[in-house]
Amino acid sequence: MTGRSFKNIRGGITAPQGFLAAGIHAGIKKQAVPDLALVVSTGEGSIAGVFTTNRVTAAPVVLDRLHLRGGIGRAIVVNSGNANACTGARGLADAKEMARLVAEHLGTTTNHVFVGSTGVIGQSLPMARIRQGIPAIIKRLRRSGGRDAARAIMTTDLTVKEIAVTARIAGHRITVGGMAKGSGMIHPDMATMLAYLTTDAAIAPPTLQRALAAAVAPSFNSISVDGDTSTNDTVLCLANGLAENPRLKTGSRELAAFQELLSHVCHSLAMQICRDGEGVTKVVRLLVTRARTQAEAKQVAKTIATSSLVKTALFGEDANWGRIMAAIGRSGVPIAPQKIGLAFEGIPIVRNGVGLGPSAERRIDRVVRRKEFTITVDLGQGSHRAWLWTTDLSYDYVKINASYRS
Amino acid sequence: MTGRSFKNIRGGITAPQGFLAAGIHAGIKKQAVPDLALVVSTGEGSIAGVFTTNRVTAAPVVLDRLHLRGGIGRAIVVNSGNANACTGARGLADAKEMARLVAEHLGTTTNHVFVGSTGVIGQSLPMARIRQGIPAIIKRLRRSGGRDAARAIMTTDLTVKEIAVTARIAGHRITVGGMAKGSGMIHPDMATMLAYLTTDAAIAPPTLQRALAAAVAPSFNSISVDGDTSTNDTVLCLANGLAENPRLKTGSRELAAFQELLSHVCHSLAMQICRDGEGVTKVVRLLVTRARTQAEAKQVAKTIATSSLVKTALFGEDANWGRIMAAIGRSGVPIAPQKIGLAFEGIPIVRNGVGLGPSAERRIDRVVRRKEFTITVDLGQGSHRAWLWTTDLSYDYVKINASYRS
Repeated sequence: MTGRSFKNIRGGITAPQGFLAAGIHAGIKKQAVPDLALVVSTGEGSIAGVFTTNRVTAAPVVLDRLHLRGGIGRAIVVNSGNANACTGARGLADAKEMARLVAEHLGTTTNHVFVGSTGVIGQSLPMARIRQGIPAIIKRLRRSGGRDAARAIMTTDLTVKEIAVTARIAGHRITVGGMAKGSGMIHPDMATMLAYLTTDAAIAPPTLQRALAAAVAPSFNSISVDGDTSTNDTVLCLANGLAENPRLKTGSRELAAFQELLSHVCHSLAMQICRDGEGVTKVVRLLVTRARTQAEAKQVAKTIATSSLVKTALFGEDANWGRIMAAIGRSGVPIAPQKIGLAFEGIPIVRNGVGLGPSAERRIDRVVRRKEFTITVDLGQGSHRAWLWTTDLSYDYVKINASYRS
Repeated sequence: MTGRSFKNIRGGITAPQGFLAAGIHAGIKKQAVPDLALVVSTGEGSIAGVFTTNRVTAAPVVLDRLHLRGGIGRAIVVNSGNANACTGARGLADAKEMARLVAEHLGTTTNHVFVGSTGVIGQSLPMARIRQGIPAIIKRLRRSGGRDAARAIMTTDLTVKEIAVTARIAGHRITVGGMAKGSGMIHPDMATMLAYLTTDAAIAPPTLQRALAAAVAPSFNSISVDGDTSTNDTVLCLANGLAENPRLKTGSRELAAFQELLSHVCHSLAMQICRDGEGVTKVVRLLVTRARTQAEAKQVAKTIATSSLVKTALFGEDANWGRIMAAIGRSGVPIAPQKIGLAFEGIPIVRNGVGLGPSAERRIDRVVRRKEFTITVDLGQGSHRAWLWTTDLSYDYVKINASYRS
């Protein structure tokens, strides 16, 4: 971040000019909580998207990938309570009907409408309720509807996740807003995580796509709650151009400033997801340094990040660094055990593969009681680095996931 | 198993002729429970071993690999409460001293003694206590000491794990006994799991090594409790030849019969470890069929077996097959979602990638309440298969692992 020449504002996804949103209870969830969200731009805009890498992809992801080919978007409709995944041809028809119904009410074409779904896998959408819900939510669209929309996309989330930042870029005020959901199945690359970003910047679809990909890699694709990657993960960014800036050009200072806004929004939403991870009490940054390649650094970070033994030790505030050493050893990366160094928040605990003894242990015992801290792994083999944010594994994670469908 | 022409007998690791064992409290663990085990053959024998694939290997594994080059063994000494891992040059010297002390008392050479350690990583062994413990345990060696030894290698295990089987092979009674420990860090290939097998069969070291490898692959290397592989895993088999059978020859019927005994002992001990997995309430066999290659079948099984979402659903007795579909999709194997079939204990729930609806769900709801069952994944792509046993993830897993060192 180059000096943070922007400021945080209220309004989330409806903070940029020309965006309306709403969230209502359409009856997809049994409980009387919001389960249908709609975000609409007053005019067509550029759209970019990044999706799950899971080969079992939900119907809305299949549809959005098709619609994204045109690069033009007007609205995003999202339901929670049902993932519309593993639902076959009927699932795809249902997702398409959701887009068509919204398009008809807005007077746009179906492929300018994007669809998201999150919830249980393998059940068909209750389309009768969605058919009633869409006219109802259209009537509720308003400038201040960002928070309602953010609430309606939640599943096991405990907190609403939204942010908006604004900056003057070459004389034009440009704003980026965002909302996200996700607390389980969080893992690179893309977990049961939906994130929707809006901006009033004028930017061509291919430029927006590159900027979004650059913002997603170190944020949404660098967090891991439980190692599972969902069938539905989606990040979409809709840019309607109402800021009336000259189109942001590749390589320009203006695009760099916009990238800073977009990256900040993605980073903030990713951290909000981590902190609200299912049963999470701690968020830990795993920084792997001096690897031979970035891929090897990432592989080591990922193996530690997903170790149940490491994650339960974090929950227990147990500075059990031996479990980290064991995870490094089984990562598949040809590490040299006698070169490894470990430090907790800068305090060394392992040097040349050997523990530094009781006094070092006592110092890191204090670190592991914090809610957020960094563990650094020095592989001593090269000059590449990578990091991931991980979380602890608590009783509540088990509780939430053992009883999710019941 | 060809007709199971053998019978189960008592005695565990001391059931075969010519083996003595003991287990005592030497003071390595704080609590007054057994923490030192010794198994001794009355004469030198053939020995075979299979070790952890973790690149961070504990000192006793480094030592045993060296000693295994000779193919000759006389005794196995094991401590619990301390893994002697990440302990550098001192750790290796300590492991070697353990072997030397036992060798001196038995009048054999150091490289005929094998060492095992299990427990916390990163602390040096309390050698003063081990130096006192070894003469004490030598005095306690006896024919009925198998169970004491099996008890002394336990860490978070709740149950003693041992078995012995016997058969007449070409007119000679041959017996195989075994003991094991392990309930956390259980994962292919080789988890924090120690297993020691004894037999009175006469068999050359290379033949024994091949037989052991064949027995370990579908047993110890096909179970997964938490996806972590330890730094200390070891399976050793010591064969002293006191059955006086003609040496078992590669390709012979007699060797096939012996393989059956050895495989049964490994399978039994592996299942005992699964059932005693940390916090385990269920043991589930994941059978992946019609894969393009065995490696792909195994990769899919492994991804499901280690999914926290699948494992918590198993604990919750929730037939949440969508989480299995999501795990298959992120396995990295180029599966075709529309070809996938899923069945619980033979009852279909997914066909051609689509759920079969409420009546099928109700039928599998009954299956998931069982303590042990099979989930079959049909990839519909080829003719290869693989399986793994996995377990559920419960509150108790978190409890045990959050507080292990405290």
